[in-house]
Formats: sequence, C-alpha cells, structure tokens
Amino acid sequence: MFSDRFEQLVQALRILPSVGPKSAQRMALHLLMKNREGAFGLAHALHEASSHIHECKICHSLTENEICDICLSNDRDQHLLCVVESPADVMAIEQSGSFRGKYHVLGGHLSPLDGIGPEEIGIPYLIQRLSSGEIEEVILATNATVEGQATAHYLLEATKHLPVHMTRIAQGVPQGGELEYVDSHTLSQAVHNRMKMK
Amino acid sequence: MFSDRFEQLVQALRILPSVGPKSAQRMALHLLMKNREGAFGLAHALHEASSHIHECKICHSLTENEICDICLSNDRDQHLLCVVESPADVMAIEQSGSFRGKYHVLGGHLSPLDGIGPEEIGIPYLIQRLSSGEIEEVILATNATVEGQATAHYLLEATKHLPVHMTRIAQGVPQGGELEYVDSHTLSQAVHNRMKMK
Repeated sequence: MFSDRFEQLVQALRILPSVGPKSAQRMALHLLMKNREGAFGLAHALHEASSHIHECKICHSLTENEICDICLSNDRDQHLLCVVESPADVMAIEQSGSFRGKYHVLGGHLSPLDGIGPEEIGIPYLIQRLSSGEIEEVILATNATVEGQATAHYLLEATKHLPVHMTRIAQGVPQGGELEYVDSHTLSQAVHNRMKMK
Repeated sequence: MFSDRFEQLVQALRILPSVGPKSAQRMALHLLMKNREGAFGLAHALHEASSHIHECKICHSLTENEICDICLSNDRDQHLLCVVESPADVMAIEQSGSFRGKYHVLGGHLSPLDGIGPEEIGIPYLIQRLSSGEIEEVILATNATVEGQATAHYLLEATKHLPVHMTRIAQGVPQGGELEYVDSHTLSQAVHNRMKMK
C-alpha cells in the first residue's frame, strides 16, 4: 500500500519457499525499517550467486567453476558413486560426514505423469559415466518417496549389464524414533531389513 | 559448501525475520535450482525499494515521494489523527478499513531502559503537529503491550494543555475469542470496559 516499489518487493519475496503474503509484508517492512544495509547486501548476494553459480559439468551439483571441488578432489574414493536427486541431498550427505566418494545429481526423479522420463533426469549420461569402468559401487540415495524408490528400481534395471555393485541406502526407524509413533510402512521395512547384531 | 557465493547468499538470507540456517539454505537452493529469474527479480526489487522508499516528511510512514499519499489526500478527515508505533500498524489499520483520518508514526515506543525517551520517538514533533489547531481528536493506537500502554499514557499527559480529545483504541476480547481461552488480564479489561448494548 505504501508505494508500487513496496508492493513489488512484497511480491518478489513471495517466490521464497513457504513465504505467504503476510510473511512477505513483514519481511519487507523489517528490511526497510530495521536493516536497509542488509537489504542491499541481500540484493547483491542474490545477484552474485545467481550470476556465478551453475551446474558442475561432471556431477551436476552446484559450483562456481566448471567442475566442482568434490569431482576435482583426489582425496575421495573414485570407485564409489552416490546418486542423489538434488544438490540439497549432496549437502545433507556431506553434512552427515558419512560418505567419501563422488556424487551424481539427477536433478529430479522419474515422474511419467509429469512427462519426466529417463532422458529428462539424464540417466543415459549416468550410464555413460558408469561405463568408464572406474566406478565399482553405486549407492542409490534417491529419496525414500514413491518416486525416489521407482527411480532407484529403474536405475537397478538399467545398469544390469554393467559390472557395478548397486546398493540402496538403508530404510528403517530414524535415530531417536519411538516405535509407537513410527508409521507402519517404515516399521514393516525395519523388521524386514533387520540386521544381525555385532 | 558449494562455493563462497552460496555461503554468502545463505548468510544474507538469514537477516530476514524468522529465517534460520536451515531455512536460509533451503531458500538459496530453491532459488538457484528452480527460480533463478525470480532471484534476479528479488535482487532488483530489494535494490529498488531500499533506494527509493523513505519516511514521509509529515507522518513518518513509508513513501517513495516527499509526502505520502495519505498525508496528501483531501478525502481524509484532517481533524482526526491516529498515532501508531510503526508503518506496519498503518498498514494493519488501513487493511481493516476502519479509519479515514490521518496518521502519525512514532517509529517505536518509550523504553527508558534502552535509552528511548520522548525525543527519540519524536514526541516534541507530534506536539508541534497537534499545536496547529487543525486536529480535534487523537486516537492513540500504540500496541496493547506494556511499552505501548506507557507510551499512550505519556502522550495523554504531554498533551493535556492542548485542546484535543485524546482517545485510546478499545481493549477486550478479540473477534471469535472464547472466554475460556482468553487471558485473565484481557478478560478483566473487557469486563471493566463493558459497553451499553444498543
């Protein structure tokens, strides 16, 4: 209501995930009243990041260079490849500190109803990567959703002719999970995939 | 982790109210992966708004011009002034459609412990505005918080010598409020300020 530019800022803020009209208005007023320097800084950071960050030519994760640091690194296991849906997943796995191999980002999952088939998520390119013979094990770390599972199963079939071990990240009760509150599908998976105690 | 510019964007997003490290990361990835055009648009909108929006010379609300549309308007009651703490309050009252007078934005409330006294929230300037004789009624619409109440009481005392009616927005049970869940202070106010039914 104050001016056109104010409305434009509120509208622009609404592209952020889970920001509705009320939050956007609150953010705009906060920036204008209390942190104008921060607003300029955010504008600059958005412009810089959007101009310079793009996909890594090898793994399709995000980088400012042609090839990302993980793909370039010699310290990481070249024989181990982790296939994920998005760069956010790379970030989550890196933050868990549980993996020291290389990554491959699909950029989505199979979803025939939305017209997303193997070509759209670059499965031919992944098979080409695997055909080089350097990779010995592929960890399928697509999401544990219906689409993520379907994508993992498709990849298993599509790579049957290649001499690589295909593994899938474990599914079961999460850390701190109380059985009483865990959904029955997860629980049935956890019982089915039970492991010998060591 | 992807690059310095990514980290800078995540840090910059954290200045937004109620955005923590996880949300900021999610926002940054969302913009870079799914809406880069929107990111450029947001950068532009932030820059434009921060460069062109400032305080109205008369009421201290926000405007792109020297004087805001409400202060300039001849359709609004010149004799009625609503005193609020911030431009967000002007927006809220305008959206309620309940007021057709002019505004005065204090830009805060009295808070002696933080060194915010009458000078800091421009009370001398407000008294000067009221001294012109044009304003007949002042509606004190500061927040119903301890500080807002104290500010309203201070203003009542400070304007005793002026020929203006000072009123305070009503306090009581909000629309849809169930007495069982209303706090006891509000309820005691509502009983104390009971009104004759018409």
